[in-house]
Amino acid sequence: MFGRTIDLGLGRKYTGKTKRLINKDGSFNIVKRGREMRLYDTYQYLSRVSTERLALFILATYLLINLLFAFVYVWCGVENLRGTDPSLYPFLNAFFFSVQTFTTVGYGVMAPQGLAVNLVVTLESLLGWVGFAIIAGVVFSRFSKPNVRILYSNNAVITPGNGVNRLQFRLANKRNNVLMEMEARVMLMMQDVHYDRHYYNLKLEQSSLHFFPLDWTLAHQIDQDSPLYNIGQQQLEERRAEVLISIKGFDETFGQVIHSRFSYTFDEILWNARFKKAYDTDAEGEIILNLTRLHETERIN
Amino acid sequence: MFGRTIDLGLGRKYTGKTKRLINKDGSFNIVKRGREMRLYDTYQYLSRVSTERLALFILATYLLINLLFAFVYVWCGVENLRGTDPSLYPFLNAFFFSVQTFTTVGYGVMAPQGLAVNLVVTLESLLGWVGFAIIAGVVFSRFSKPNVRILYSNNAVITPGNGVNRLQFRLANKRNNVLMEMEARVMLMMQDVHYDRHYYNLKLEQSSLHFFPLDWTLAHQIDQDSPLYNIGQQQLEERRAEVLISIKGFDETFGQVIHSRFSYTFDEILWNARFKKAYDTDAEGEIILNLTRLHETERIN
Amino acid sequence: MFGRTIDLGLGRKYTGKTKRLINKDGSFNIVKRGREMRLYDTYQYLSRVSTERLALFILATYLLINLLFAFVYVWCGVENLRGTDPSLYPFLNAFFFSVQTFTTVGYGVMAPQGLAVNLVVTLESLLGWVGFAIIAGVVFSRFSKPNVRILYSNNAVITPGNGVNRLQFRLANKRNNVLMEMEARVMLMMQDVHYDRHYYNLKLEQSSLHFFPLDWTLAHQIDQDSPLYNIGQQQLEERRAEVLISIKGFDETFGQVIHSRFSYTFDEILWNARFKKAYDTDAEGEIILNLTRLHETERIN
Amino acid sequence: MFGRTIDLGLGRKYTGKTKRLINKDGSFNIVKRGREMRLYDTYQYLSRVSTERLALFILATYLLINLLFAFVYVWCGVENLRGTDPSLYPFLNAFFFSVQTFTTVGYGVMAPQGLAVNLVVTLESLLGWVGFAIIAGVVFSRFSKPNVRILYSNNAVITPGNGVNRLQFRLANKRNNVLMEMEARVMLMMQDVHYDRHYYNLKLEQSSLHFFPLDWTLAHQIDQDSPLYNIGQQQLEERRAEVLISIKGFDETFGQVIHSRFSYTFDEILWNARFKKAYDTDAEGEIILNLTRLHETERIN
Repeated sequence: MFGRTIDLGLGRKYTGKTKRLINKDGSFNIVKRGREMRLYDTYQYLSRVSTERLALFILATYLLINLLFAFVYVWCGVENLRGTDPSLYPFLNAFFFSVQTFTTVGYGVMAPQGLAVNLVVTLESLLGWVGFAIIAGVVFSRFSKPNVRILYSNNAVITPGNGVNRLQFRLANKRNNVLMEMEARVMLMMQDVHYDRHYYNLKLEQSSLHFFPLDWTLAHQIDQDSPLYNIGQQQLEERRAEVLISIKGFDETFGQVIHSRFSYTFDEILWNARFKKAYDTDAEGEIILNLTRLHETERIN
Repeated sequence: MFGRTIDLGLGRKYTGKTKRLINKDGSFNIVKRGREMRLYDTYQYLSRVSTERLALFILATYLLINLLFAFVYVWCGVENLRGTDPSLYPFLNAFFFSVQTFTTVGYGVMAPQGLAVNLVVTLESLLGWVGFAIIAGVVFSRFSKPNVRILYSNNAVITPGNGVNRLQFRLANKRNNVLMEMEARVMLMMQDVHYDRHYYNLKLEQSSLHFFPLDWTLAHQIDQDSPLYNIGQQQLEERRAEVLISIKGFDETFGQVIHSRFSYTFDEILWNARFKKAYDTDAEGEIILNLTRLHETERIN
Repeated sequence: MFGRTIDLGLGRKYTGKTKRLINKDGSFNIVKRGREMRLYDTYQYLSRVSTERLALFILATYLLINLLFAFVYVWCGVENLRGTDPSLYPFLNAFFFSVQTFTTVGYGVMAPQGLAVNLVVTLESLLGWVGFAIIAGVVFSRFSKPNVRILYSNNAVITPGNGVNRLQFRLANKRNNVLMEMEARVMLMMQDVHYDRHYYNLKLEQSSLHFFPLDWTLAHQIDQDSPLYNIGQQQLEERRAEVLISIKGFDETFGQVIHSRFSYTFDEILWNARFKKAYDTDAEGEIILNLTRLHETERIN
Repeated sequence: MFGRTIDLGLGRKYTGKTKRLINKDGSFNIVKRGREMRLYDTYQYLSRVSTERLALFILATYLLINLLFAFVYVWCGVENLRGTDPSLYPFLNAFFFSVQTFTTVGYGVMAPQGLAVNLVVTLESLLGWVGFAIIAGVVFSRFSKPNVRILYSNNAVITPGNGVNRLQFRLANKRNNVLMEMEARVMLMMQDVHYDRHYYNLKLEQSSLHFFPLDWTLAHQIDQDSPLYNIGQQQLEERRAEVLISIKGFDETFGQVIHSRFSYTFDEILWNARFKKAYDTDAEGEIILNLTRLHETERIN
């Protein structure tokens, strides 16, 4: 039963129940303690967050830095700023002067006077400079890497046919970039009664695909050599089975190898079902792939 | 007839006539519905459009943002701008003030006054900052990726010789960058009467090339093992045959693997023709490749 | 004894004792004389140094350039600057004017006057421009490459079991980025009495790993085919043995192949010891890897 | 004599004498006519030229653009610029105003007045913006790619030993970056009396190297299977032989595959010579590689 297992790097000896191994976004349910945290991580975080969050972060940091320098200018004495607006509070004058310095707008109606303020200005305009360089870097980082979005069918299905069951699922590229030379590796995890995990390779009928502009259906024959042979729906649940998927391809736009991960737990596998066709031709001879139809299955009686 | 087919990922079951599979620019004739659209796609679009369009886009966005802020300044009251030019309409004053703020030129003859305008300035100069970062990123993106331009001969030819026909076509690198370790894969698509598509690999006499500073002629022998064996010009048309080409190489300048696609439909294949030599040596011993001669063929009687 | 050696590229003929081959940071103990030094190297250096050093470097260069231009403005005559602050030394006025020009703040209270100063300003603002471009580039460089931090256990251990000894060590990814498709190559270096070096491959029980979110224990069986067979602790010391480790993987975030090197010298190998388990599950079923426990070993009697 | 040739992609049918195939800088002696020229090529050119040339190019473009705008401002009427310096020619005033606008310094002592000048300013400050983005991109491009400098020994040698001659040459990494997983491919080109070229692979004793911090000597045994077997110095000259070298490796800093090319013509091959050792250990056990000694050979009698 538990022969011919492999080591995937996800741990085999366990002492308790665990959550699913691979989340729906491809991340692992593994927490690392004692790891290094650095400026680098903040930068990488900013390269990945949503545009809204990044905008908020930039705005907040910008206001914060200017508030900080406003305090410094107030502390230096607002009388050392030429041309302040008497109708505004001194602090606001200091704040707007800071803005004009940090962004290097420098209208000059307000201007520094005396040694102290001039030194602060020297520092703040350099900081504006470096801050801008960082923002430019973050913006570019966000776009200079492939942003792969593989859509997986919501369910895997077990489809009977020609005397043998097939485990099947589908995927497609959510974006319009060209992916090529796709390779798939599918693995099965089953736990034993001691919570220890056992991993198996699931052999695919076709594990690579040259072009990937349409959808791709991956199929594993549950024959005598399959670790799923003679295993029913209830046994999958008892062993808390999880089908692990690792997809590799080549993003032509960026010239980079890309990876994607996904998993189906035992309760996401439909028995006796099959997928409906997701693409067709229209009147002009154009081929249409409808991504919303990728999830469509039908029962087999 | 339709044995030994392969799955290329371009779909096999069809219900009607379709356009050519691969366009002359290497894109697929496949439309994706329901795909994600995001800021990321706009950015990628700007990284690819012609220089003229990018310039137009930048100019238009720049003017639009400044018009927008001009309205805001007018709405705040142009009397809150110091030093406006009485010979110009208030709106123009606001517009030029916006320009001076957004680009951080900040001459200072015009300058903000009072809380409201100063707050708008705070926002606009930040926006100028971020906008600039985005432009810098787009400009760099355009140039940081290999811009591969493979030139394919206008026609493929079928050249008789030594009792066997050869399907041949030529390619060359349009640019001066160094491409190496070229690999070619050539496939044939033929439709049956039900519009279903069948794909075949076409074996090449030489499918890889170490250096690629000259042209490269790819040749497939139409022998007994070829899916083209005993198939004439008319049959190619009836089956709406298309020769699919997938080229892979290494761009030395960018250190990246690059890909190129092309196809010849049945009506782009010349029968009983061959290519003329496209390169020669000049008086100084220099080797000259003339790209315009890449398409030159001659008939064989 | 010294049969079946390989050439790793680290030199075999030596005439004296040498330090360890691979340092703890993965660098080689090899000094290159007569190599090219260029601006490029300065740039690469800045891309790698600690944030603190980079900040210091930027600040110092910034002050230096402004001091330099301050001298030039003084030499041109500070009377050619409009609007200087009479309460400050002429040199300070020149310095702050330089700052306002280099950073393109340009308040304008101080402004250039006459040909000479205007020409210097023309140059300095261009320099500010280019300097900024360089800083932006350095900042982006620091973050655009994978910053791989593999943590290796402090010691390798020799663990007896089932009648055969195993040389083992562990590693984990210090960071939270996803590493995949790990490959390991482990080599042994032993010196003979003439100081010549001999290199051997050490065969691993498992030399590759698909996922790498947990730790990875590498094991070499010291069987009859091993160059370590029948070699005791004292012989390792006499031959100044060093176990060389070369790890390769794929960084998913950057889509790049990454490498890491490490080595254990004879005195960093613990005999008759084994590693303790470094990960466990918590109450919520989350898997916890504790990096500080990676080094924990226990003696075997 | 001319059996077992290969197609390298460098052309085989020729009608006259040609220069060496691969220049000392790795480029091919092949000229492409009719190729595409675009902005992209200018950018790539700037990414590769020497720092001095780039600096000159930036300075010249900067001055040119400002001269151009100076003309436009003069044409608009210098009386539309506020605060011009009466001691300077109107054109110089216009030029310095342009500088202050293009670099966004904007002191404001000089400032635009009226519609026409303000419109030009709107355009020029945008142009300054975009120009800066381009410079930032070029600067970054220059440093974001591996700058591989492989040093090849000035000569190849033919070294007799153990009854067989060896063709040998050496190489080393001129820089301090880490190169790994080196692979070498060596080919021989010989012309026949019709100027046609014939290419052969030369089998290497060791064609790959794991680490590359020292020098690497490549050796080809001239045994019975070698195309150089029984070919003397005079024959090499008659056939205008050229040894073509293609080196591949992995640059760890950039995570990129790198390539290098070189060639030795018949007159750069020394007969009956061998290389001297280029590295040694110093008193502290440090290994020293002296790049200037890479070329040192000694005659064998």
